[in-house]
This record gives sequence, structure tokens and C-alpha cells, in this order.
Amino acid sequence: MEKTQTKANIDLKELSDYVNSVRKDYEITLKSLVDIPSVSMDPAFKADVLKAGERACEVLKEAGAEAEIIQTAGYPVIIGQFKSDPKHPTVTIYNHMDVQPADPAEWNSAPFTMKVDGDTYHGRGTTDDKGPAMSVLYAAKYAHAHKFPINIKFIWELEEENGSPSFEGFLKANKDKLTTDSVAVSDTIWVSRERPAIAYGLRGLQGVCVKLKTGAKAVHSGTTGGLARNPIGELCQLISECYDARTGKVNIPGFYDDVQDPSDLEVENFVKSGFDVENFKKAHELRDLRTSDPREAALRIWAKPTFEVHGITGGYSGAGVKTIVPHEAEAKISMRLVPNQDPAKIFELFSKFVKEKCPDAEIEPQGSLKPYLGEFSGRFNKAATDSYEAAFGKQAAFTREGGSIGAVVSMNDVLKVPITFLGLSLPEHGYHAVNENFDWQQAGGGIKLFVHYFDLLSR
Amino acid sequence: MEKTQTKANIDLKELSDYVNSVRKDYEITLKSLVDIPSVSMDPAFKADVLKAGERACEVLKEAGAEAEIIQTAGYPVIIGQFKSDPKHPTVTIYNHMDVQPADPAEWNSAPFTMKVDGDTYHGRGTTDDKGPAMSVLYAAKYAHAHKFPINIKFIWELEEENGSPSFEGFLKANKDKLTTDSVAVSDTIWVSRERPAIAYGLRGLQGVCVKLKTGAKAVHSGTTGGLARNPIGELCQLISECYDARTGKVNIPGFYDDVQDPSDLEVENFVKSGFDVENFKKAHELRDLRTSDPREAALRIWAKPTFEVHGITGGYSGAGVKTIVPHEAEAKISMRLVPNQDPAKIFELFSKFVKEKCPDAEIEPQGSLKPYLGEFSGRFNKAATDSYEAAFGKQAAFTREGGSIGAVVSMNDVLKVPITFLGLSLPEHGYHAVNENFDWQQAGGGIKLFVHYFDLLSR
Repeated sequence: MEKTQTKANIDLKELSDYVNSVRKDYEITLKSLVDIPSVSMDPAFKADVLKAGERACEVLKEAGAEAEIIQTAGYPVIIGQFKSDPKHPTVTIYNHMDVQPADPAEWNSAPFTMKVDGDTYHGRGTTDDKGPAMSVLYAAKYAHAHKFPINIKFIWELEEENGSPSFEGFLKANKDKLTTDSVAVSDTIWVSRERPAIAYGLRGLQGVCVKLKTGAKAVHSGTTGGLARNPIGELCQLISECYDARTGKVNIPGFYDDVQDPSDLEVENFVKSGFDVENFKKAHELRDLRTSDPREAALRIWAKPTFEVHGITGGYSGAGVKTIVPHEAEAKISMRLVPNQDPAKIFELFSKFVKEKCPDAEIEPQGSLKPYLGEFSGRFNKAATDSYEAAFGKQAAFTREGGSIGAVVSMNDVLKVPITFLGLSLPEHGYHAVNENFDWQQAGGGIKLFVHYFDLLSR
Repeated sequence: MEKTQTKANIDLKELSDYVNSVRKDYEITLKSLVDIPSVSMDPAFKADVLKAGERACEVLKEAGAEAEIIQTAGYPVIIGQFKSDPKHPTVTIYNHMDVQPADPAEWNSAPFTMKVDGDTYHGRGTTDDKGPAMSVLYAAKYAHAHKFPINIKFIWELEEENGSPSFEGFLKANKDKLTTDSVAVSDTIWVSRERPAIAYGLRGLQGVCVKLKTGAKAVHSGTTGGLARNPIGELCQLISECYDARTGKVNIPGFYDDVQDPSDLEVENFVKSGFDVENFKKAHELRDLRTSDPREAALRIWAKPTFEVHGITGGYSGAGVKTIVPHEAEAKISMRLVPNQDPAKIFELFSKFVKEKCPDAEIEPQGSLKPYLGEFSGRFNKAATDSYEAAFGKQAAFTREGGSIGAVVSMNDVLKVPITFLGLSLPEHGYHAVNENFDWQQAGGGIKLFVHYFDLLSR
């Protein structure tokens, strides 16, 4: 790829000094957000989610941006902007201010008290997605101060981790305020610290809870065992009929029918991305994987659908073995979907299959997100590649993202402008995991990344 | 069956008055035991188990019996006796003073605070096995006061619900104190309120915990899903390979090899016992069963082995669906065994099978109990039948018991005397279940039952 232009607008030394000068401020601001446990999927945290929205709005205003809290059917969305001139191009950056749950008992430090340990920032939301959002903000502040001829808008969601149920409604209701020439999303993960990734596709998702109740109470397994049904055993059987957990292959009829295989070029890009099975294993602290072949491994996380059991409960969980026949069991499940799988159709196939196998299983649909597939060429992706190289000195790979960002599908449908992914997180940052963290190398580099990106888009 | 003798030793009116007169005292004494949460399988309750032992010893002494606490490798055993004359026959009654765990959140009343509600006694241990033990005690007190020519001994265990790990050692170490002509066990369940049951066989048990750990922490199911192993899914698959939960059929090779089928006469007795599938379902509050055929149903709970999952844990159990790939999962399992299955051999077969299917599953053996098969004829069973008829006006059925009482196997091996089962509990009393209860009809009738039994044995 040829360079877009020389980067005449940016004094690299001055940018570097700016980044160093705002570090302390960046950390204080990030901490003020991480310290609010904005867990959107758990209603118990409602007040905190709202508080995080208010604080986020303040942060935008403190940086000199215009900002407001927009009400939706669910949690509000915070929007902001640094205005330049209506004649200049406009870019909108999407981030989210809500986080995954965190059980303090499992963490090395309090998840909702950001701890700075040298260059590392520990806490829920540091990497997903409050830390990257702050890098964008400090870059925009710089661009605004240096009068880059570009309008920069912000969309900060508060329901991303809960499947963005109100986001599409928000977009439709606020189209006038959201006019933009392009969108950049900063909520994705590099291949490794050495290899930035520009995603152009996301998996979708269909969540389900399956519950089986066979009695009113747990009963004595001596007195009733053999005659009484066992809801845990039957739920296990049902799950093992849905998929082969050892290979990951889904056995629900029709599940793979609409899967669009990636093109040869995409697969080639995946392989060339430097995706390394050993590094992946280490970064996620996994003992072993379903395959050790890097090509197959990359396809499995970026371009193939999954069936996943997130949690299972039933019966006795205390010390020893309490010899009961339990009366109910429940599993939390989701299926990650790829283009062109449709969540509604998949839910229907799943429900039909489960009802056939176990007619009295109760099926409750959970979050539902469509998969997304964009372009991996064009002006915006080129600007992104050049910005990564300028900011980090590293060549970005074009990959897909295994996760789901419902907001992206909605923005694609409603705003109808190019969407580019400029992520800053690393595999070892523990997205959704215990001991989530972020670091100054990615945060500071991220400020530079977006300064270059705003510059390139402003031309 | 002809009657043993006329019951010349017993003035039925006086016995009836006695039973009525001790009701209040029975309830107070029972409450003093039920109110101590003697949960033997959970080390957190150690102090309470010891306290229950001390209280039980006091209760024996308060009744006028000799009593002492015998130390073992585990929890102590309380023994007691009403001495008559060494020349008279001796009968030993076995009960246990430990109980199953109970989660107060699931109960209608506090499980460890006995509540008297009319004729019903609510609380953990009321029916299993503190209530029946007290009926025996008040009967023995009567027999002693009326100078029945019989020595009555008590063995009250504190580890029955934890598989009686120290009981055989206790028997061997205290043989001199435990000489007896017969043993009666009062820890079994009637077919229904209309139909007492005299069990002559017990199922054995082999408990196991199976744990699968595939990583150090839960990870993001978008980022890693498809490539990372899922320990819940694999554990479910393993369980469904071990057995078909819908039919109950165990698929572990060799599992059924040593099963001794019940004789035609036994099966005939089972069918004639009046075992009723609808009553069973109602008593245990079960929605439906694996069969509705009464013959098959009785065989399933009394004479066939089982595979049972008592509890399963893994992953996220909070609100909503947290889209993680979990890193570990655990199942608590037991297999109920019938003559002539050997728990050690079954554990070996199970372990071999699991290791073949999932080499990194961790298998931890839990409680292990041999099955037991005694006689259903002879002098003691006849005395038992006659006593049921005299006390309750009801004809007892000869059945087996689906549960396991490890102590019975040990007493059979060490004491080498006939063992008879005189149970008082009903299916609806909730053995091992939530809202366990007992009632005065069974408790008071139980006092009469044992008075008649002591009388018949004293001749």
C-alpha cells in the first residue's frame, strides 16, 4: 500500500510531548470512570450505570467538547463533539462506557477500583472499553486544539455489554444529531502486541437460557433414584445433543445452512496476520485448544459460528456429595453467528431441536445480535493502516473479530457510512475476564493513532 | 403367618395412655436434638455434630439409660443401654443423630428450629433419623419400667449421612460392649401411610466428584469461542456418555455385570406391597417419572442400580448471560449399587471410562457403601410384622430400601447377628429433601411398635 500523504499537519515531537504531558491526566480521568461499576446486564447496578453516563458526559465537557445525555428506551447514550466547520468532514467515534460483571472474590485487586501498577491499569473496563475511549478523547482534544479541519463526534453507549437493545432506536430518533461521513469503532483486539488488527467483520450472537424443572424440590436419591427424572442429567444430554463439545461442531439441523465461508483472500490474510496459537493460549491462560493448526484456529475464532455454555447450575453445590435427585437445572448458552446467519432463524432452529429432544425444557431467548461484514479495503481502512504504522511503527493485519458489537450492525443499517475498526486492546488484557487490564503503551500509542487518523481524514 | 403369642405382657390401654402422656416430653426432647444442625458431611458444622452427640448422650441418661460417648477415627458414636439381666436376650437398636445439609432459603421454616404444627414436626432430622430414634427411646423406657426380660442397647451414629467412614472401626474396637442377639434399624421408609415396609435389602453407593479445568480464568467467548475448550460442555458430554438420563440406563462398560436380579418371590412381594406410582409422584412432588408401570417402578428404586448427578457448577450464574468461555466445571455424582455390585470395582470402571473419554478430567472418589441383602423370613421379621400390626393395625410389606445405610453392612460383617428394619418414616416426610417433617401418628405409633417388638423378643 502506498502512503496517503506525508504527515505535514503533525509535528511528531510535539505530539509525543503532548502524549507524555497528558499521561497523569489520562490516568485520573480513566480512574474516575473505572471506579464506577457500570455493569449493564445486572439491574442491581442501574444507579451506577446512570452515574457512569453522567461522569462520561462531564469528562467530555472537561475536555472542551460539547456533550449531552440522550435518553432512550433503556440506558441513555452520551454524545459529544468537537466542532470545526460544517464544511469540513465529520468522523464519529463509537465507544461504550458499560462493562462486564466482575466477582471481586476472583480478582487479584478490587475490580471497580482502578489500580495503576507501573504502566499497567488494572480494573474492569480499563481495556473494554473505557481506556480506548479516553485515548480517542485525548487525541480529539489535540486535533481540536491544533485546528484540524475535521468535526469529531463521539457516541458512548451504556448497553453494549447487554446486547445494545436500545441503540438502534437511539440512532433512528437522533439521526439529525448524528450526521457523519464515517464511523470509527474502538472496541476490538489486536492479534498480538506486535500486530495491530483492523477488523472488518464481527460475529453475531443468539443467547438462550434453558431451564428444566422435574419436581417441586430435591428428593432423596436412594428413595427415588432410578424412577425420578434427573434434570441435570437430562440438561447435560440435551447440551451434548446440541453440539460436540470436544470438536465444537453444532448438531442442530440447519445451523450451518446460511454460513458464508470467508474468501480465499480473507483466509490468506488471516494466516498472514501472524496469529499464533501458542501466544493465544498463553494470553488467555488456556491449558489447551481444540486445534493447534493456526489457519484452522483463526477460522474458528473469526469466521465460524459457535455453541457455548456460559454457565450451568443445578442441585447441590456445597461441601461433599449430598445424595439428592435435584428438581431443576439451568444452562446459560449462546451461539456466536457469522455472515449470513440470522439470529432469529437460529433461535427457531435451536428451540425446535430442544423441544423435540426434551419437550418440557423451558427456553428463554436472551440477547440477539446480527453478524457484520464490512470492507477491508478503501480509503478509511488505508488511513487506519497508515495511522497504526505512524503511531506504533507496526503493520496492521486485516482480520475479523470473534466478538459481537451490536451497535456496529445498527450504525451500518441506520447511518449508512463506512465503519472502520481502530482497536487498542491486546489478547492479554483480559476482555471479559478476571483481572482485566490496559496499559500506557496502548493508551498513549492510541492517542497518537487517533491524532494521525483524524489528520488523514481531515485532508 | 400365625401370631407369635398373645401379647400378655402388654396392657394395651395402659400403653396407649403412656404414649399420650409422653407426647409433650417427646416433642421437647426431639426439638432439643433437631435444633442442633448436626450436618456431618460439611466440616463447617463440626462443633454442632459434636454438640448433638453430647446432647444425645444426655437424652439417654435423662431417660434413665446408661450412656457414653465412644471416640472413633471420625465423629464419636453414642452408645447406651437399659440393662435387665445378662441371662435375658439383648437387642440393639441403631439410629443416627447426624443429618443432611439444609439451605434455609429454600425451606418454609427454619430447618434447624423444630416447629410443631398440630401433629406435624418440621425440621431437618425430624424423620431422618432423630424422630424415629426418640420413638425407640420412649419404647425402651417403657419396657425397662415394666421390667421386660430383655436388655436394650442403643447405637447412635454421627456419620451416617457422610457414608459412615468410622463406623466399622468403631464396631471392631468396641465388640465387647456391643454383644447382642439381634439388631433393629429404625431408619427406613414405609411404602405409604397405609402400608408399613420391612426392608431386608439396601442399595450401596459410590460417590464421585468430577472436575474439569481447561484454563486459569473465564475468557471472552467472542475472542476465544470456537478455539477454546468449554469445560461445561465437555462435562455435560461426559455425563451423557456415562448414562442416558432419559431412561436411566448406564453405559459404562461392565457396570451391570455383577447385578443379581431379585427372585420371582421378591418381585411378587414388591408388586403386592401396594407400591403406587401416583402416590409416589405426589409424595415426592415430582412432575413425572421414567416409567408409570408399578412393577418396573418398584424394581427401579429397590433392586436396580442408578447413576445420579447431584449437583453441577461451572461458569456464570448471575443475572443475564455473561458471554464467557468458563475455565472449570464440576459435577457431584453417585451410583447406587445393588447386590452383588462392588463399589471399588464400580469406581474403577467409572474412572477408566471417564479417563478414556476425557483424559484431563479429575476424578475424586467420595463416599463408598456396599449394598446389603438380608433375609425376609425368620423369627425377627415375624416379630416385626406382628408388632406393626399390633401398633398400627397394618400389614407390613417386605421390600428393599433404595437408600444406603453403610452401618448396616458393617454391623452385618462385624456383629454377625440378624438385622431387622423397623422404619417409621413416610414418603411424604421428605427424607433428604427441603421441608423435612415427621408426625405424631408415626412417632406415637412407633413407640407402641417398639414396645411390642421388645415384648416379642423378650419371650
